[in-house]
Amino acid sequence: MLGELVAINGRIFKPNDAKISVFDRGFLYGDSVYEVARSYGGVFFALEDHMERMFNSARLISLDLEMHEREYLAEIYRVAHEAGIQDAYMRVVVSRGEGAINLDPTSVHKTTVVIYIKKLDGMINPKFYKEGLDIITAKVRRNTSDSLDPNIKSGNYLNNIMALGEAKKKKANDAILLNHDGEVTEGTTWNFFMIKNKTVYTSPDGCGILHGITRSKIKKICKENKIKFVEKLFTPEDVYKADEAFSSGSVKEIMAIRSLDGKKIGEGVPGEITLKIAKLYSDYVKDYCDTFRSRVQI
Amino acid sequence: MLGELVAINGRIFKPNDAKISVFDRGFLYGDSVYEVARSYGGVFFALEDHMERMFNSARLISLDLEMHEREYLAEIYRVAHEAGIQDAYMRVVVSRGEGAINLDPTSVHKTTVVIYIKKLDGMINPKFYKEGLDIITAKVRRNTSDSLDPNIKSGNYLNNIMALGEAKKKKANDAILLNHDGEVTEGTTWNFFMIKNKTVYTSPDGCGILHGITRSKIKKICKENKIKFVEKLFTPEDVYKADEAFSSGSVKEIMAIRSLDGKKIGEGVPGEITLKIAKLYSDYVKDYCDTFRSRVQI
Repeated sequence: MLGELVAINGRIFKPNDAKISVFDRGFLYGDSVYEVARSYGGVFFALEDHMERMFNSARLISLDLEMHEREYLAEIYRVAHEAGIQDAYMRVVVSRGEGAINLDPTSVHKTTVVIYIKKLDGMINPKFYKEGLDIITAKVRRNTSDSLDPNIKSGNYLNNIMALGEAKKKKANDAILLNHDGEVTEGTTWNFFMIKNKTVYTSPDGCGILHGITRSKIKKICKENKIKFVEKLFTPEDVYKADEAFSSGSVKEIMAIRSLDGKKIGEGVPGEITLKIAKLYSDYVKDYCDTFRSRVQI
Repeated sequence: MLGELVAINGRIFKPNDAKISVFDRGFLYGDSVYEVARSYGGVFFALEDHMERMFNSARLISLDLEMHEREYLAEIYRVAHEAGIQDAYMRVVVSRGEGAINLDPTSVHKTTVVIYIKKLDGMINPKFYKEGLDIITAKVRRNTSDSLDPNIKSGNYLNNIMALGEAKKKKANDAILLNHDGEVTEGTTWNFFMIKNKTVYTSPDGCGILHGITRSKIKKICKENKIKFVEKLFTPEDVYKADEAFSSGSVKEIMAIRSLDGKKIGEGVPGEITLKIAKLYSDYVKDYCDTFRSRVQI
Protein backbone atom coordinates (compact mmCIF):
# COMPACT_ATOMS: atom_id res chain seq x y z
CA MET A 1 0.00 0.00 0.00
CA LEU A 2 2.56 2.55 -1.14
CA GLY A 3 0.19 4.94 -2.89
CA GLU A 4 1.27 6.84 -6.03
CA LEU A 5 4.32 5.16 -7.52
CA VAL A 6 6.40 4.52 -10.60
CA ALA A 7 7.97 1.27 -11.77
CA ILE A 8 10.96 1.55 -14.12
CA ASN A 9 11.96 -1.76 -15.69
CA GLY A 10 10.31 -3.52 -12.76
CA ARG A 11 11.89 -1.49 -9.96
CA ILE A 12 9.49 0.52 -7.82
CA PHE A 13 10.15 4.19 -7.03
CA LYS A 14 8.35 7.02 -5.29
CA PRO A 15 7.46 9.61 -7.96
CA ASN A 16 10.19 12.06 -6.91
CA ASP A 17 12.86 9.40 -7.29
CA ALA A 18 11.63 8.06 -10.63
CA LYS A 19 14.32 9.07 -13.10
CA ILE A 20 15.62 7.97 -16.45
CA SER A 21 18.79 8.72 -18.37
CA VAL A 22 18.98 11.87 -20.49
CA PHE A 23 20.20 9.46 -23.20
CA ASP A 24 16.89 7.61 -23.21
CA ARG A 25 15.41 7.91 -26.71
CA GLY A 26 12.08 8.75 -25.10
CA PHE A 27 13.63 11.99 -23.88
CA LEU A 28 15.80 12.71 -26.92
CA TYR A 29 13.31 11.94 -29.71
CA GLY A 30 9.96 10.99 -28.19
CA ASP A 31 10.85 7.49 -29.48
CA SER A 32 8.29 5.60 -27.37
CA VAL A 33 4.74 4.27 -27.26
CA TYR A 34 2.29 4.58 -24.41
CA GLU A 35 -1.17 3.73 -23.12
CA VAL A 36 -3.39 5.14 -20.39
CA ALA A 37 -6.05 3.06 -18.65
CA ARG A 38 -8.34 3.47 -15.67
CA SER A 39 -9.15 0.99 -12.93
CA TYR A 40 -12.51 0.61 -11.20
CA GLY A 41 -12.40 -1.17 -7.84
CA GLY A 42 -9.12 -2.81 -8.76
CA VAL A 43 -10.06 -3.85 -12.31
CA PHE A 44 -8.46 -2.11 -15.29
CA PHE A 45 -11.20 -1.67 -17.85
CA ALA A 46 -10.38 -3.10 -21.30
CA LEU A 47 -6.69 -3.44 -20.45
CA GLU A 48 -6.33 -6.19 -23.08
CA ASP A 49 -7.51 -3.67 -25.71
CA HIS A 50 -4.93 -1.16 -24.50
CA MET A 51 -2.19 -3.76 -24.70
CA GLU A 52 -3.28 -4.75 -28.20
CA ARG A 53 -3.18 -1.10 -29.27
CA MET A 54 0.23 -0.55 -27.65
CA PHE A 55 1.60 -3.47 -29.64
CA ASN A 56 0.08 -2.01 -32.79
CA SER A 57 1.69 1.39 -32.09
CA ALA A 58 5.01 -0.37 -31.54
CA ARG A 59 4.65 -2.32 -34.78
CA LEU A 60 4.03 0.92 -36.69
CA ILE A 61 7.37 2.34 -35.51
CA SER A 62 9.24 -1.03 -35.66
CA LEU A 63 9.74 -1.09 -31.90
CA ASP A 64 10.24 -4.54 -30.37
CA LEU A 65 8.38 -4.53 -27.03
CA GLU A 66 10.38 -7.54 -25.81
CA MET A 67 7.64 -8.83 -23.44
CA HIS A 68 4.32 -10.45 -24.35
CA GLU A 69 1.02 -8.61 -23.98
CA ARG A 70 0.07 -10.86 -21.04
CA GLU A 71 3.37 -10.03 -19.32
CA TYR A 72 2.73 -6.29 -19.59
CA LEU A 73 -0.77 -6.89 -18.27
CA ALA A 74 0.51 -8.87 -15.29
CA GLU A 75 3.17 -6.25 -14.54
CA ILE A 76 0.58 -3.45 -14.57
CA TYR A 77 -1.58 -5.38 -12.08
CA ARG A 78 1.47 -6.11 -9.91
CA VAL A 79 2.42 -2.42 -9.77
CA ALA A 80 -1.18 -1.37 -9.07
CA HIS A 81 -1.29 -3.93 -6.25
CA GLU A 82 1.93 -2.51 -4.77
CA ALA A 83 0.37 0.94 -4.92
CA GLY A 84 -2.79 -0.35 -3.27
CA ILE A 85 -4.96 2.00 -5.31
CA GLN A 86 -8.39 0.67 -6.29
CA ASP A 87 -9.51 3.47 -8.61
CA ALA A 88 -6.40 4.37 -10.49
CA TYR A 89 -5.03 6.31 -13.40
CA MET A 90 -2.37 4.13 -15.05
CA ARG A 91 0.13 5.19 -17.69
CA VAL A 92 2.58 2.78 -19.27
CA VAL A 93 5.37 4.19 -21.46
CA VAL A 94 7.81 1.99 -23.35
CA SER A 95 10.71 3.80 -24.95
CA ARG A 96 13.23 2.29 -27.34
CA GLY A 97 15.77 2.71 -24.55
CA GLU A 98 19.11 4.29 -23.96
CA GLY A 99 22.04 4.43 -26.32
CA ALA A 100 24.59 6.54 -28.13
CA ILE A 101 23.18 9.74 -29.62
CA ASN A 102 22.15 8.58 -33.07
CA LEU A 103 18.68 8.50 -34.63
CA ASP A 104 19.20 4.93 -35.86
CA PRO A 105 16.46 2.83 -34.23
CA THR A 106 18.51 -0.34 -34.67
CA SER A 107 21.34 1.01 -32.50
CA VAL A 108 19.61 0.24 -29.17
CA HIS A 109 18.62 -3.09 -27.70
CA LYS A 110 16.83 -2.68 -24.38
CA THR A 111 13.53 -0.86 -23.93
CA THR A 112 12.72 1.30 -20.92
CA VAL A 113 9.35 0.38 -19.38
CA VAL A 114 7.75 2.98 -17.12
CA ILE A 115 4.47 2.25 -15.32
CA TYR A 116 2.89 5.04 -13.32
CA ILE A 117 -0.03 4.53 -10.96
CA LYS A 118 -1.88 7.24 -9.10
CA LYS A 119 -5.29 7.81 -7.54
CA LEU A 120 -7.80 9.00 -10.10
CA ASP A 121 -9.53 11.09 -7.44
CA GLY A 122 -8.98 14.80 -8.05
CA MET A 123 -7.73 14.42 -11.63
CA ILE A 124 -10.98 15.49 -13.30
CA ASN A 125 -13.04 18.56 -12.52
CA PRO A 126 -16.61 17.17 -12.00
CA LYS A 127 -18.21 20.40 -13.23
CA PHE A 128 -17.36 19.42 -16.81
CA TYR A 129 -19.69 16.41 -16.59
CA LYS A 130 -22.51 18.71 -15.47
CA GLU A 131 -21.87 21.67 -17.73
CA GLY A 132 -19.99 20.33 -20.76
CA LEU A 133 -16.80 21.56 -22.39
CA ASP A 134 -16.10 24.69 -24.42
CA ILE A 135 -13.78 23.76 -27.26
CA ILE A 136 -12.23 25.36 -30.32
CA THR A 137 -11.12 24.23 -33.76
CA ALA A 138 -7.32 24.40 -33.65
CA LYS A 139 -5.45 26.15 -36.46
CA VAL A 140 -2.74 23.50 -36.38
CA ARG A 141 -3.77 20.50 -38.52
CA ARG A 142 -3.69 16.87 -37.39
CA ASN A 143 -0.57 14.93 -38.32
CA THR A 144 -1.10 13.07 -41.58
CA SER A 145 -1.30 9.27 -41.62
CA ASP A 146 1.63 8.91 -44.01
CA SER A 147 3.94 11.15 -41.91
CA LEU A 148 3.15 10.37 -38.29
CA ASP A 149 0.04 8.20 -38.14
CA PRO A 150 -2.35 9.34 -35.37
CA ASN A 151 -2.81 5.61 -34.75
CA ILE A 152 0.65 5.54 -33.25
CA LYS A 153 0.10 6.45 -29.59
CA SER A 154 3.67 7.64 -29.17
CA GLY A 155 5.91 10.02 -27.31
CA ASN A 156 5.52 12.53 -30.18
CA TYR A 157 2.69 14.68 -28.88
CA LEU A 158 3.67 18.20 -29.93
CA ASN A 159 0.92 18.34 -32.55
CA ASN A 160 -1.68 17.75 -29.84
CA ILE A 161 0.09 20.06 -27.37
CA MET A 162 0.04 22.92 -29.88
CA ALA A 163 -3.69 22.43 -30.37
CA LEU A 164 -4.35 22.43 -26.63
CA GLY A 165 -2.09 25.48 -26.28
CA GLU A 166 -4.30 27.32 -28.79
CA ALA A 167 -7.38 26.40 -26.73
CA LYS A 168 -5.81 27.65 -23.50
CA LYS A 169 -4.87 30.95 -25.15
CA LYS A 170 -8.51 31.41 -26.10
CA LYS A 171 -9.70 30.43 -22.58
CA ALA A 172 -11.34 27.30 -23.97
CA ASN A 173 -11.10 23.87 -22.33
CA ASP A 174 -9.82 21.91 -25.28
CA ALA A 175 -9.55 21.65 -29.07
CA ILE A 176 -10.37 19.47 -32.05
CA LEU A 177 -8.02 19.19 -35.01
CA LEU A 178 -8.91 19.13 -38.70
CA ASN A 179 -7.21 17.08 -41.40
CA HIS A 180 -5.72 18.77 -44.47
CA ASP A 181 -9.10 18.70 -46.22
CA GLY A 182 -10.67 20.72 -43.39
CA GLU A 183 -12.61 17.80 -41.91
CA VAL A 184 -12.86 17.08 -38.19
CA THR A 185 -10.54 14.30 -37.01
CA GLU A 186 -10.41 14.14 -33.20
CA GLY A 187 -9.67 16.06 -30.03
CA THR A 188 -6.23 16.51 -28.47
CA THR A 189 -6.50 13.28 -26.42
CA TRP A 190 -10.03 12.09 -27.21
CA ASN A 191 -12.39 11.15 -30.02
CA PHE A 192 -15.16 13.49 -31.09
CA PHE A 193 -18.87 12.76 -31.65
CA MET A 194 -21.81 14.90 -32.70
CA ILE A 195 -25.51 14.07 -32.69
CA LYS A 196 -27.99 15.34 -35.25
CA ASN A 197 -31.58 14.13 -35.57
CA LYS A 198 -30.95 11.35 -33.04
CA THR A 199 -28.01 9.96 -35.06
CA VAL A 200 -24.50 9.78 -33.59
CA TYR A 201 -21.76 10.81 -36.03
CA THR A 202 -18.04 10.31 -35.60
CA SER A 203 -15.05 10.61 -37.94
CA PRO A 204 -14.25 7.34 -39.70
CA ASP A 205 -11.20 5.18 -39.16
CA GLY A 206 -8.40 6.14 -41.49
CA CYS A 207 -9.21 9.87 -41.68
CA GLY A 208 -6.41 10.69 -39.24
CA ILE A 209 -7.63 9.53 -35.84
CA LEU A 210 -6.48 7.23 -33.09
CA HIS A 211 -8.68 4.16 -32.86
CA GLY A 212 -10.16 5.03 -29.49
CA ILE A 213 -11.02 2.15 -27.19
CA THR A 214 -13.87 4.08 -25.58
CA ARG A 215 -14.95 5.03 -29.11
CA SER A 216 -15.16 1.36 -30.11
CA LYS A 217 -17.18 0.55 -26.98
CA ILE A 218 -19.58 3.41 -27.76
CA LYS A 219 -20.04 2.04 -31.28
CA LYS A 220 -20.89 -1.36 -29.80
CA ILE A 221 -23.22 0.11 -27.16
CA CYS A 222 -25.07 2.19 -29.76
CA LYS A 223 -25.61 -0.88 -31.97
CA GLU A 224 -26.84 -2.95 -29.03
CA ASN A 225 -29.22 -0.20 -27.97
CA LYS A 226 -30.54 0.74 -31.40
CA ILE A 227 -28.97 4.18 -31.39
CA LYS A 228 -28.12 5.11 -34.98
CA PHE A 229 -24.32 5.35 -35.30
CA VAL A 230 -22.62 6.63 -38.46
CA GLU A 231 -18.92 7.00 -39.25
CA LYS A 232 -18.64 9.86 -41.68
CA LEU A 233 -16.49 12.91 -42.42
CA PHE A 234 -17.87 16.30 -41.37
CA THR A 235 -16.70 19.89 -40.89
CA PRO A 236 -16.88 22.37 -38.00
CA GLU A 237 -19.83 24.02 -39.82
CA ASP A 238 -21.74 20.73 -39.47
CA VAL A 239 -20.93 20.68 -35.76
CA TYR A 240 -22.25 24.23 -35.28
CA LYS A 241 -25.63 22.93 -36.47
CA ALA A 242 -25.58 19.72 -34.41
CA ASP A 243 -28.01 18.99 -31.58
CA GLU A 244 -25.40 17.58 -29.21
CA ALA A 245 -21.68 16.78 -29.08
CA PHE A 246 -19.40 14.86 -26.79
CA SER A 247 -15.86 13.57 -26.26
CA SER A 248 -14.71 10.06 -25.39
CA GLY A 249 -11.55 8.85 -23.67
CA SER A 250 -10.41 6.13 -21.30
CA VAL A 251 -9.94 8.38 -18.28
CA LYS A 252 -12.62 11.06 -18.65
CA GLU A 253 -15.03 8.58 -20.29
CA ILE A 254 -17.83 10.57 -21.94
CA MET A 255 -18.05 14.32 -21.53
CA ALA A 256 -20.56 16.61 -23.19
CA ILE A 257 -19.31 19.47 -25.37
CA ARG A 258 -21.47 22.57 -25.09
CA SER A 259 -19.76 24.89 -27.57
CA LEU A 260 -17.36 24.93 -30.49
CA ASP A 261 -15.53 28.14 -31.47
CA GLY A 262 -17.82 30.13 -29.18
CA LYS A 263 -20.95 28.78 -30.89
CA LYS A 264 -23.44 27.01 -28.64
CA ILE A 265 -24.19 23.42 -29.70
CA GLY A 266 -27.91 22.59 -29.35
CA GLU A 267 -29.13 23.93 -26.01
CA GLY A 268 -25.56 24.41 -24.76
CA VAL A 269 -26.00 21.79 -22.04
CA PRO A 270 -25.27 18.03 -21.95
CA GLY A 271 -27.87 16.54 -24.29
CA GLU A 272 -30.30 13.71 -23.75
CA ILE A 273 -28.61 11.16 -26.02
CA THR A 274 -25.15 12.09 -24.70
CA LEU A 275 -26.30 11.41 -21.15
CA LYS A 276 -27.98 8.19 -22.22
CA ILE A 277 -24.77 6.94 -23.89
CA ALA A 278 -22.72 8.01 -20.85
CA LYS A 279 -25.03 5.95 -18.60
CA LEU A 280 -24.90 2.93 -20.94
CA TYR A 281 -21.11 3.18 -21.04
CA SER A 282 -20.94 3.34 -17.26
CA ASP A 283 -23.12 0.21 -17.04
CA TYR A 284 -20.95 -1.51 -19.63
CA VAL A 285 -17.81 -0.76 -17.60
CA LYS A 286 -19.50 -1.99 -14.42
CA ASP A 287 -20.51 -5.27 -16.10
CA TYR A 288 -16.99 -5.77 -17.43
CA CYS A 289 -15.45 -5.18 -14.02
CA ASP A 290 -18.01 -7.34 -12.16
CA THR A 291 -17.42 -10.22 -14.57
CA PHE A 292 -13.65 -9.83 -14.25
CA ARG A 293 -13.88 -9.72 -10.45
CA SER A 294 -16.10 -12.84 -10.36
CA ARG A 295 -13.38 -14.77 -12.21
CA VAL A 296 -10.15 -13.34 -10.87
CA GLN A 297 -9.11 -12.61 -7.28
CA ILE A 298 -7.95 -8.97 -7.49
CA MET B 1 39.14 18.59 -17.66
CA LEU B 2 36.37 16.12 -16.88
CA GLY B 3 35.88 14.76 -20.40
CA GLU B 4 32.43 13.76 -21.66
CA LEU B 5 29.78 15.25 -19.41
CA VAL B 6 26.21 16.44 -19.05
CA ALA B 7 24.92 19.59 -17.37
CA ILE B 8 21.31 19.52 -16.16
CA ASN B 9 20.02 22.93 -15.15
CA GLY B 10 23.61 24.01 -14.52
CA ARG B 11 24.67 21.00 -12.44
CA ILE B 12 27.43 18.86 -13.94
CA PHE B 13 27.10 15.06 -14.11
CA LYS B 14 29.07 12.19 -15.55
CA PRO B 15 26.96 10.68 -18.40
CA ASN B 16 25.91 7.61 -16.39
CA ASP B 17 24.54 9.79 -13.59
CA ALA B 18 22.72 12.25 -15.85
CA LYS B 19 19.04 11.60 -15.17
CA ILE B 20 15.76 13.43 -15.46
CA SER B 21 12.33 12.79 -14.03
CA VAL B 22 9.97 10.43 -15.86
CA PHE B 23 7.48 13.31 -15.48
CA ASP B 24 9.60 15.57 -17.64
CA ARG B 25 7.53 16.57 -20.66
CA GLY B 26 10.56 15.87 -22.82
CA PHE B 27 10.15 12.19 -21.94
CA LEU B 28 6.34 12.08 -21.90
CA TYR B 29 5.58 14.05 -25.06
CA GLY B 30 8.84 15.04 -26.77
CA ASP B 31 7.87 18.56 -25.63
CA SER B 32 11.31 20.12 -26.11
CA VAL B 33 13.59 21.92 -28.55
CA TYR B 34 17.23 21.20 -29.24
CA GLU B 35 20.32 22.16 -31.17
CA VAL B 36 23.56 20.40 -32.04
CA ALA B 37 26.78 22.27 -32.73
CA ARG B 38 30.41 21.38 -33.25
CA SER B 39 33.50 23.04 -31.83
CA TYR B 40 36.84 23.43 -33.59
CA GLY B 41 39.80 24.08 -31.30
CA GLY B 42 37.50 25.35 -28.57
CA VAL B 43 35.30 27.55 -30.79
CA PHE B 44 31.69 26.55 -31.48
CA PHE B 45 31.07 27.33 -35.12
CA ALA B 46 28.02 29.57 -35.73
CA LEU B 47 26.72 29.04 -32.19
CA GLU B 48 24.82 32.34 -32.38
CA ASP B 49 22.93 30.96 -35.41
CA HIS B 50 22.07 27.79 -33.46
CA MET B 51 20.80 29.87 -30.53
CA GLU B 52 18.71 32.01 -32.87
CA ARG B 53 17.20 28.89 -34.40
CA MET B 54 16.55 27.32 -30.99
CA PHE B 55 14.63 30.45 -29.97
CA ASN B 56 12.67 30.25 -33.22
CA SER B 57 11.81 26.57 -32.57
CA ALA B 58 10.69 27.51 -29.06
CA ARG B 59 8.57 30.38 -30.37
CA LEU B 60 6.82 28.02 -32.79
CA ILE B 61 5.71 25.77 -29.90
CA SER B 62 5.11 28.68 -27.44
CA LEU B 63 7.90 27.53 -25.16
CA ASP B 64 9.43 30.24 -22.97
CA LEU B 65 13.17 29.54 -22.83
CA GLU B 66 13.57 31.68 -19.68
CA MET B 67 17.20 32.63 -20.36
CA HIS B 68 18.59 34.97 -23.04
CA GLU B 69 20.41 33.66 -26.10
CA ARG B 70 23.70 35.07 -24.75
CA GLU B 71 23.15 33.24 -21.46
CA TYR B 72 22.67 29.90 -23.23
CA LEU B 73 25.78 30.65 -25.26
CA ALA B 74 27.83 31.42 -22.14
CA GLU B 75 26.53 28.28 -20.39
CA ILE B 76 27.51 26.09 -23.36
CA TYR B 77 31.04 27.53 -23.30
CA ARG B 78 31.24 27.06 -19.52
CA VAL B 79 30.23 23.38 -19.79
CA ALA B 80 32.63 22.78 -22.71
CA HIS B 81 35.40 24.36 -20.62
CA GLU B 82 34.60 22.05 -17.68
CA ALA B 83 34.77 19.11 -20.07
CA GLY B 84 38.08 20.36 -21.45
CA ILE B 85 37.22 19.12 -24.94
CA GLN B 86 38.56 21.23 -27.82
CA ASP B 87 36.84 19.46 -30.72
CA ALA B 88 33.42 18.67 -29.38
CA TYR B 89 29.97 17.47 -30.28
CA MET B 90 27.52 19.58 -28.28
CA ARG B 91 23.80 18.96 -27.85
CA VAL B 92 21.54 21.29 -25.92
CA VAL B 93 17.98 20.17 -25.15
CA VAL B 94 15.45 22.40 -23.44
CA SER B 95 12.24 20.68 -22.39
CA ARG B 96 9.14 22.41 -21.08
CA GLY B 97 9.95 20.77 -17.74
CA GLU B 98 8.32 18.57 -15.21
CA GLY B 99 4.74 18.67 -14.03
CA ALA B 100 1.49 16.81 -13.46
CA ILE B 101 0.54 14.47 -16.32
CA ASN B 102 -1.49 16.78 -18.51
CA LEU B 103 -0.85 17.89 -22.08
CA ASP B 104 -1.56 21.53 -21.20
CA PRO B 105 1.64 23.44 -22.01
CA THR B 106 0.66 26.25 -19.60
CA SER B 107 0.65 23.85 -16.63
CA VAL B 108 4.45 23.85 -16.16
CA HIS B 109 6.74 26.69 -15.25
CA LYS B 110 10.37 25.61 -15.18
CA THR B 111 12.26 24.31 -18.20
CA THR B 112 14.83 21.51 -18.01
CA VAL B 113 18.10 22.46 -19.73
CA VAL B 114 20.40 19.61 -20.69
CA ILE B 115 23.80 20.31 -22.26
CA TYR B 116 25.85 17.35 -23.40
CA ILE B 117 29.50 17.60 -24.46
CA LYS B 118 31.59 14.81 -25.85
CA LYS B 119 34.65 14.36 -28.05
CA LEU B 120 33.77 14.43 -31.73
CA ASP B 121 36.56 11.96 -32.44
CA GLY B 122 35.16 8.56 -33.41
CA MET B 123 31.60 9.77 -34.04
CA ILE B 124 31.87 9.81 -37.84
CA ASN B 125 33.17 7.04 -40.05
CA PRO B 126 35.79 8.77 -42.29
CA LYS B 127 35.15 6.36 -45.17
CA PHE B 128 31.91 8.21 -45.95
CA TYR B 129 33.86 11.36 -46.84
CA LYS B 130 35.97 9.35 -49.26
CA GLU B 131 33.29 7.12 -50.78
CA GLY B 132 29.99 8.96 -50.34
CA LEU B 133 26.69 7.78 -48.90
CA ASP B 134 24.16 5.31 -50.26
CA ILE B 135 20.70 6.65 -49.50
CA ILE B 136 17.07 5.81 -50.23
CA THR B 137 13.84 7.70 -50.69
CA ALA B 138 11.78 6.89 -47.58
CA LYS B 139 8.16 5.77 -47.96
CA VAL B 140 7.16 7.82 -44.92
CA ARG B 141 6.49 11.44 -45.93
CA ARG B 142 7.96 14.49 -44.20
CA ASN B 143 5.76 16.08 -41.54
CA THR B 144 3.71 18.90 -43.03
CA SER B 145 4.42 22.51 -42.09
CA ASP B 146 0.91 23.09 -40.76
CA SER B 147 0.96 19.98 -38.50
CA LEU B 148 4.47 19.76 -37.13
CA ASP B 149 6.66 22.26 -38.93
CA PRO B 150 10.07 20.75 -39.86
CA ASN B 151 11.44 24.15 -38.83
CA ILE B 152 10.76 23.19 -35.22
CA LYS B 153 13.90 21.34 -34.14
CA SER B 154 12.07 19.51 -31.38
CA GLY B 155 11.95 16.32 -29.35
CA ASN B 156 9.41 14.89 -31.84
CA TYR B 157 11.70 12.96 -34.14
CA LEU B 158 9.73 9.80 -34.91
CA ASN B 159 9.09 10.91 -38.50
CA ASN B 160 12.86 11.09 -39.10
CA ILE B 161 13.51 7.89 -37.13
CA MET B 162 11.01 5.94 -39.27
CA ALA B 163 12.76 7.18 -42.42
CA LEU B 164 16.18 6.17 -41.08
CA GLY B 165 14.73 2.81 -39.99
CA GLU B 166 13.60 2.20 -43.59
CA ALA B 167 17.12 2.96 -44.80
CA LYS B 168 18.70 0.56 -42.29
CA LYS B 169 16.30 -2.21 -43.33
CA LYS B 170 17.49 -1.74 -46.91
CA LYS B 171 21.16 -1.69 -45.84
CA ALA B 172 21.45 1.94 -46.93
CA ASN B 173 23.21 4.63 -44.91
CA ASP B 174 20.41 7.16 -44.73
CA ALA B 175 17.21 8.48 -46.30
CA ILE B 176 15.59 11.55 -47.81
CA LEU B 177 11.90 12.30 -47.26
CA LEU B 178 9.41 13.62 -49.79
CA ASN B 179 6.61 16.06 -49.13
CA HIS B 180 2.98 15.15 -49.93
CA ASP B 181 3.46 16.28 -53.52
CA GLY B 182 6.30 13.81 -54.01
CA GLU B 183 9.05 16.44 -54.00
CA VAL B 184 12.34 16.04 -52.14
CA THR B 185 12.48 17.92 -48.84
CA GLU B 186 15.52 16.91 -46.79
CA GLY B 187 17.40 14.03 -45.18
CA THR B 188 16.70 12.60 -41.75
CA THR B 189 19.03 15.07 -40.02
CA TRP B 190 20.54 17.00 -42.90
CA ASN B 191 19.70 19.11 -45.94
CA PHE B 192 20.00 17.68 -49.43
CA PHE B 193 21.71 19.14 -52.51
CA MET B 194 22.15 17.94 -56.06
CA ILE B 195 24.33 19.31 -58.83
CA LYS B 196 23.42 19.30 -62.51
CA ASN B 197 25.35 21.12 -65.24
CA LYS B 198 27.51 22.88 -62.62
CA THR B 199 24.46 24.32 -60.82
CA VAL B 200 23.73 23.45 -57.17
CA TYR B 201 20.06 22.75 -56.46
CA THR B 202 18.42 22.47 -53.05
CA SER B 203 14.82 22.40 -51.86
CA PRO B 204 13.46 25.88 -51.10
CA ASP B 205 12.55 27.26 -47.68
CA GLY B 206 8.92 26.57 -46.86
CA CYS B 207 8.65 23.25 -48.74
CA GLY B 208 8.94 21.30 -45.50
CA ILE B 209 12.58 21.57 -44.45
CA LEU B 210 14.56 22.73 -41.46
CA HIS B 211 16.47 25.91 -42.23
CA GLY B 212 19.89 24.33 -42.01
CA ILE B 213 22.71 26.49 -40.73
CA THR B 214 25.30 24.65 -42.84
CA ARG B 215 22.85 25.00 -45.75
CA SER B 216 22.74 28.78 -45.32
CA LYS B 217 26.55 28.97 -45.17
CA ILE B 218 26.79 26.89 -48.37
CA LYS B 219 24.41 29.31 -50.08
CA LYS B 220 26.63 32.20 -49.02
CA ILE B 221 29.84 30.43 -50.06
CA CYS B 222 28.40 29.55 -53.48
CA LYS B 223 27.38 33.18 -54.08
CA GLU B 224 30.81 34.45 -53.03
CA ASN B 225 32.54 31.94 -55.26
CA LYS B 226 30.33 32.32 -58.31
CA ILE B 227 28.90 28.80 -58.07
CA LYS B 228 25.35 28.86 -59.41
CA PHE B 229 22.96 28.09 -56.54
CA VAL B 230 19.23 27.56 -57.11
CA GLU B 231 16.45 26.83 -54.58
CA LYS B 232 13.86 24.82 -56.43
CA LEU B 233 11.59 21.81 -55.95
CA PHE B 234 12.66 18.54 -57.58
CA THR B 235 11.83 14.83 -57.45
CA PRO B 236 13.88 11.66 -56.92
CA GLU B 237 13.77 11.15 -60.72
CA ASP B 238 15.63 14.45 -61.11
CA VAL B 239 18.22 13.27 -58.60
CA TYR B 240 18.79 10.01 -60.50
CA LYS B 241 19.89 12.13 -63.45
CA ALA B 242 22.05 14.54 -61.45
CA ASP B 243 25.83 14.79 -61.81
CA GLU B 244 26.54 14.96 -58.08
CA ALA B 245 24.71 15.07 -54.75
CA PHE B 246 25.64 15.81 -51.16
CA SER B 247 24.30 16.28 -47.64
CA SER B 248 24.95 19.14 -45.22
CA GLY B 249 24.80 19.23 -41.44
CA SER B 250 26.54 20.89 -38.52
CA VAL B 251 28.38 17.79 -37.32
CA LYS B 252 29.14 15.84 -40.50
CA GLU B 253 29.53 19.04 -42.53
CA ILE B 254 29.40 18.14 -46.23
CA MET B 255 29.27 14.52 -47.31
CA ALA B 256 28.94 13.27 -50.88
CA ILE B 257 26.00 11.02 -51.78
CA ARG B 258 26.93 8.39 -54.32
CA SER B 259 23.59 6.66 -54.86
CA LEU B 260 19.85 7.09 -54.37
CA ASP B 261 17.53 4.07 -54.32
CA GLY B 262 20.34 1.89 -55.65
CA LYS B 263 20.91 4.19 -58.64
CA LYS B 264 24.41 5.60 -59.02
CA ILE B 265 24.55 9.41 -59.10
CA GLY B 266 27.01 10.71 -61.69
CA GLU B 267 30.22 8.68 -61.46
CA GLY B 268 29.18 7.23 -58.07
CA VAL B 269 32.06 8.96 -56.30
CA PRO B 270 32.32 12.36 -54.52
CA GLY B 271 32.08 14.89 -57.35
CA GLU B 272 34.33 17.79 -58.20
CA ILE B 273 31.94 20.57 -57.19
CA THR B 274 30.97 18.74 -54.01
CA LEU B 275 34.62 18.51 -52.98
CA LYS B 276 35.19 22.14 -53.91
CA ILE B 277 32.26 23.28 -51.74
CA ALA B 278 33.43 21.03 -48.89
CA LYS B 279 36.87 22.67 -49.05
CA LEU B 280 35.38 26.19 -49.21
CA TYR B 281 33.15 25.36 -46.24
CA SER B 282 36.12 24.05 -44.27
CA ASP B 283 38.02 27.29 -45.01
CA TYR B 284 34.97 29.33 -44.00
CA VAL B 285 34.77 27.49 -40.66
CA LYS B 286 38.50 27.99 -40.09
CA ASP B 287 38.22 31.74 -40.77
CA TYR B 288 35.27 32.03 -38.40
CA CYS B 289 37.12 30.20 -35.63
CA ASP B 290 40.38 32.11 -36.14
CA THR B 291 38.56 35.41 -35.99
CA PHE B 292 36.67 34.34 -32.89
CA ARG B 293 39.88 33.13 -31.23
CA SER B 294 41.69 36.38 -32.03
CA ARG B 295 39.02 38.34 -30.16
CA VAL B 296 38.06 36.05 -27.28
CA GLN B 297 40.28 34.12 -24.88
CA ILE B 298 38.89 30.56 -25.14
